[in-house]
Amino acid sequence: MNPLHVVILAAGQGSRMKSALPKVLHRIAGKPMLHHVMDTARQLGAARIHGVIGHGADQVRAITQADDVQWAMQHEQLGTGHAVAQALPDLPDDARVLILYGDVPLTRKGTLETLVSRVSEQSIGLLTVTLENPDGYGRIIRDAEGKVTAIVEQKDATSEQKTINEVNTGILAVSAAHLKTWLPRLSNANAQGEYYLTDVIAMANAAGVSVEVAQPENEFEVQGVNNRVQLAELERWYQQQQAQRLMTEGATLADPARIDVRGELTVAPDVLIDINAVFEGRVTLETGVSIGAGCVLRNCHIGANTHVDAHSVIDGAVVGQNVQIGPFARLRPGTELADYTKVGNFVETKKAIVGEGSKINHLSYVGDASLGRNVNVGAGTITCNYDGANKHQTIIADGVFVGSNTSLVAPVSLAENATIGAGSTITRDVSAEELSVARGKQRNIPNWQRPVKK
Amino acid sequence: MNPLHVVILAAGQGSRMKSALPKVLHRIAGKPMLHHVMDTARQLGAARIHGVIGHGADQVRAITQADDVQWAMQHEQLGTGHAVAQALPDLPDDARVLILYGDVPLTRKGTLETLVSRVSEQSIGLLTVTLENPDGYGRIIRDAEGKVTAIVEQKDATSEQKTINEVNTGILAVSAAHLKTWLPRLSNANAQGEYYLTDVIAMANAAGVSVEVAQPENEFEVQGVNNRVQLAELERWYQQQQAQRLMTEGATLADPARIDVRGELTVAPDVLIDINAVFEGRVTLETGVSIGAGCVLRNCHIGANTHVDAHSVIDGAVVGQNVQIGPFARLRPGTELADYTKVGNFVETKKAIVGEGSKINHLSYVGDASLGRNVNVGAGTITCNYDGANKHQTIIADGVFVGSNTSLVAPVSLAENATIGAGSTITRDVSAEELSVARGKQRNIPNWQRPVKK
Amino acid sequence: MNPLHVVILAAGQGSRMKSALPKVLHRIAGKPMLHHVMDTARQLGAARIHGVIGHGADQVRAITQADDVQWAMQHEQLGTGHAVAQALPDLPDDARVLILYGDVPLTRKGTLETLVSRVSEQSIGLLTVTLENPDGYGRIIRDAEGKVTAIVEQKDATSEQKTINEVNTGILAVSAAHLKTWLPRLSNANAQGEYYLTDVIAMANAAGVSVEVAQPENEFEVQGVNNRVQLAELERWYQQQQAQRLMTEGATLADPARIDVRGELTVAPDVLIDINAVFEGRVTLETGVSIGAGCVLRNCHIGANTHVDAHSVIDGAVVGQNVQIGPFARLRPGTELADYTKVGNFVETKKAIVGEGSKINHLSYVGDASLGRNVNVGAGTITCNYDGANKHQTIIADGVFVGSNTSLVAPVSLAENATIGAGSTITRDVSAEELSVARGKQRNIPNWQRPVKK
Repeated sequence: MNPLHVVILAAGQGSRMKSALPKVLHRIAGKPMLHHVMDTARQLGAARIHGVIGHGADQVRAITQADDVQWAMQHEQLGTGHAVAQALPDLPDDARVLILYGDVPLTRKGTLETLVSRVSEQSIGLLTVTLENPDGYGRIIRDAEGKVTAIVEQKDATSEQKTINEVNTGILAVSAAHLKTWLPRLSNANAQGEYYLTDVIAMANAAGVSVEVAQPENEFEVQGVNNRVQLAELERWYQQQQAQRLMTEGATLADPARIDVRGELTVAPDVLIDINAVFEGRVTLETGVSIGAGCVLRNCHIGANTHVDAHSVIDGAVVGQNVQIGPFARLRPGTELADYTKVGNFVETKKAIVGEGSKINHLSYVGDASLGRNVNVGAGTITCNYDGANKHQTIIADGVFVGSNTSLVAPVSLAENATIGAGSTITRDVSAEELSVARGKQRNIPNWQRPVKK
Repeated sequence: MNPLHVVILAAGQGSRMKSALPKVLHRIAGKPMLHHVMDTARQLGAARIHGVIGHGADQVRAITQADDVQWAMQHEQLGTGHAVAQALPDLPDDARVLILYGDVPLTRKGTLETLVSRVSEQSIGLLTVTLENPDGYGRIIRDAEGKVTAIVEQKDATSEQKTINEVNTGILAVSAAHLKTWLPRLSNANAQGEYYLTDVIAMANAAGVSVEVAQPENEFEVQGVNNRVQLAELERWYQQQQAQRLMTEGATLADPARIDVRGELTVAPDVLIDINAVFEGRVTLETGVSIGAGCVLRNCHIGANTHVDAHSVIDGAVVGQNVQIGPFARLRPGTELADYTKVGNFVETKKAIVGEGSKINHLSYVGDASLGRNVNVGAGTITCNYDGANKHQTIIADGVFVGSNTSLVAPVSLAENATIGAGSTITRDVSAEELSVARGKQRNIPNWQRPVKK
Repeated sequence: MNPLHVVILAAGQGSRMKSALPKVLHRIAGKPMLHHVMDTARQLGAARIHGVIGHGADQVRAITQADDVQWAMQHEQLGTGHAVAQALPDLPDDARVLILYGDVPLTRKGTLETLVSRVSEQSIGLLTVTLENPDGYGRIIRDAEGKVTAIVEQKDATSEQKTINEVNTGILAVSAAHLKTWLPRLSNANAQGEYYLTDVIAMANAAGVSVEVAQPENEFEVQGVNNRVQLAELERWYQQQQAQRLMTEGATLADPARIDVRGELTVAPDVLIDINAVFEGRVTLETGVSIGAGCVLRNCHIGANTHVDAHSVIDGAVVGQNVQIGPFARLRPGTELADYTKVGNFVETKKAIVGEGSKINHLSYVGDASLGRNVNVGAGTITCNYDGANKHQTIIADGVFVGSNTSLVAPVSLAENATIGAGSTITRDVSAEELSVARGKQRNIPNWQRPVKK
């Protein structure tokens, strides 16, 4: 099979976005639109991706570094035909070429596979869509046998042609050989003074090359983004599809309209996801996991039958099975919770390895720490890991009981079954089975006169 | 009136749910679908509920224990007629029988009352529904006088019959006497090799028994659940109805599409509920209560004019009038807040009785504690209620002032108007009017050399 | 131009609201409906606003104090004509009069400008709307030339008239001179025994005064509120419009259906707003700001490129550029954060001035405090600002390092580059470069016997 080269037009400014960011870098589900298109190109097996850039080219290149991408600069924006022409020198003569747009981010792989399959020496593939309201789009003109003969722009259309609902999407697939013949012949003798890629349809007809049509399943697949309203529409459509997928895979969603997946969420059957959960990066939920209302999970793995209660934020953590988290827990990167652990309300963990059965139930900060099994960390415990210059480790062995409101000044180590009295500031290591207390003596002073309100 | 017996078919596996849970145990608004159907049966005054179970029968029975439920096992799934036949021996001869489905959870009581009223010696009741798109359903065939004469399945329907929009829901009401005559005569001589309950319609006609139709107000009433997409659709319809009810009863909802009621929420007039509140179990909100964005309330009573600020989680608490809660408060079971109390941000309470006018404004854990009136609990106060083995009580009398970052090591008692100095760890009781301080002496060491970054 | 006087009918009880509050005081986007109408009147340049009040008049007046509002009491509710008549003595003879309704809150200024432009000596302006389902509304009758000749109420309409889709909104504009002629002639000889304002249309026709029509862009502009379901519908429409405006101005919204703006939200381009944000009062977001999921912002200014992480609550704060806030941060009034500051999880600030580069990362309460530059406040730090009677200040100079779990008993001052040892309770000032420690000596006691479970 001839190699597939994908040309992605990504040079436009997108002034209606009102943004300092080039349009194609605006994000759907946390990923730049251009990257959505490139990822689809990769799924199609593209031998090479040609990005035609112009406005904000440096920004685009900077966040789009990849070995399989070749850039072509379009210094002036002289139309879609001109844009594709910038990539022409990089296209091998034997290539099949698929032309996509950096601001049309959500075309399905299957739709494009069908389109690409239309390409041969005698045919090109054109993606069209049938719209209830085709106003403003180029209409697809077919002859009596249904063969596509031309695309007529809105302004040039007769009133009869305006009733045609099948319109051009701009996406097409064509051999490099044909492109190399036709593109140099494009003319800008039109009202806009631009070179239109669309004109290759007429050239194909003239050359006896047939125009074979493919269509998307859903018109959102070919919707372009020119402003943030359209960006939000596509975001919602993308999220709806994610929700459908998750339910099909066996997750119960409290409300499919209130879940956001920005990355790769993998679910086992019998996962429950309450309202307004947000998933970012790579997240895996094992069977029986339940995620409470308003949780945010990023780059984490949650083991089977673990419950994450409402309003918890988890980032970069690995969580075992049968763990209880939250509400209002905040796990930061480097947190590893073994099975049957508990991390409760108003607790923050960071680079914290927590052994099986250990509990940090309330109002604590545990950072740069390693906890053994069956440790009980009392409310208000702080690992003082930072001395203003460096971070230090706190090591807590199996079975330690840390009383409430304790400060553990790292580096410090609490050996097996040590007990720390409440309210202590521990600066020296504690040996196994020891009780350590560091607090002032309690003095009760009678007949205390309180301050009075001034 | 002859006794009403309700037969609920609940034996199916529901493989499209992709679940280890039998389908009828999947939940709408926090309650298994089967329990919704049973509760409706009870509202209809059922003398007895007959659950026909098969797949996952043990699980179903385990969570569905009730005196009024009689189980019938369907060991093989040989069709709806076969399923009902398993309950036949338990149906008294004089019963009126209503046949429902454990996966059709939201049929309204009124709809079924109408249906049941159709049953007599000379008639049976059939629930039909008129669908815009009847594809796939059994069509209701009526004669010139409008009398139902047959149900024709999709595959057997003529093209003319396929245009009929009135379809069978499978729900019917019939005397036990008729059932006992007809069910044994059902045949499985059909493509699926199953015994269809539907065939009793033809038998009724043959016997000169009229088929009287009832219809639901809304087609969601008869929608069955075969996968989690449908489960979510019914969940949303249920929640929409709850929202409508609450608004009719005098609650202002910031967004009727963003409230979830899973249990019994009782509201007085002039309650305000902001976006994304979740209510579970039995919750009562008295007049003038406002609930902030993102709150989760479970099994609690909130007194008049109390404000629960954003992102608070309340479970098993009784809250008085004119109380200020949150944001980010977490009240756990056994919390009782008297009038004019305040529980502020990052505060957790559990088994805590708090007297009128008392305040716990910030970053505290108050558990297994009793507070009198006008107590001020400073920020960072912890009741150290757990010694690693047992829980102990903290008693704080009227007018006590607890300084910030105090640890109260239970069992401990602070008498009236006692004052606790900030940063103290209190292990012994404090008498009335005493000041108690337990802290180290402050030493200021000049020219301190800080650690340097390594 | 003759002065514009706006009469707003606001005397109704609104019994279907089920509320102790007069209907016109129920809120859309946090503002009473009546105030929405008054603000629109002001945008139209009204010389005076005439509020016709009755039910709950004292409540309405109490929260609607303004110099440009003149009240007229309608002691009995005898119809819309009677209501307007109460304001008649206050209307100058040369005025143009616009009649609005306190429970029709969202009519656009442009729509009313057009309507008012219809008023002259020879014409009055009538606002009509074309409804798909006009059931229940007064139909607009036009003659062959399209001239409005009458309004026919539903009950009086012929079956032919009932097919008319153009209906009366009740909103009209008319010269005071005409009103003073026509209103006294209104009759209550009708089924309801009321004086209908609508009857002036017939009087206009009789007097040869033409009825000139204006129409709203959207029918929600003329939707009245009679119950809380309708209140919620208008709330949602209002919020949709806000979302559209924000996106047009250059904000990316994760979900336009999940944002609530109750007040004035001003955004610069390239602001990102995640799901379920709530904005109240006056909020300004500078360019590059991102607001995380579930945040609540009230009366605050957020500087450029600042990130507010999920579930943060900000009220009455001024925040600089490149600041990191949250998740779970709570900034209260009087908080001022300079550039490059950080306020992290479970931190509350109040009347706190925080200098550039300073950090309060975890579990702290900083109130009535002033922090210099590059201060590091350790986890669990509490400013003990309240002695039970008065609030006191904590002053922290540049470069101070406060160790974790520290209590700062105000009034207290920490001079430049002071260091506070973790777990200290600081009651006396600390000089520059000093280390201050206040904690008990650590004692380790071997072979400690833990309590056993009783």
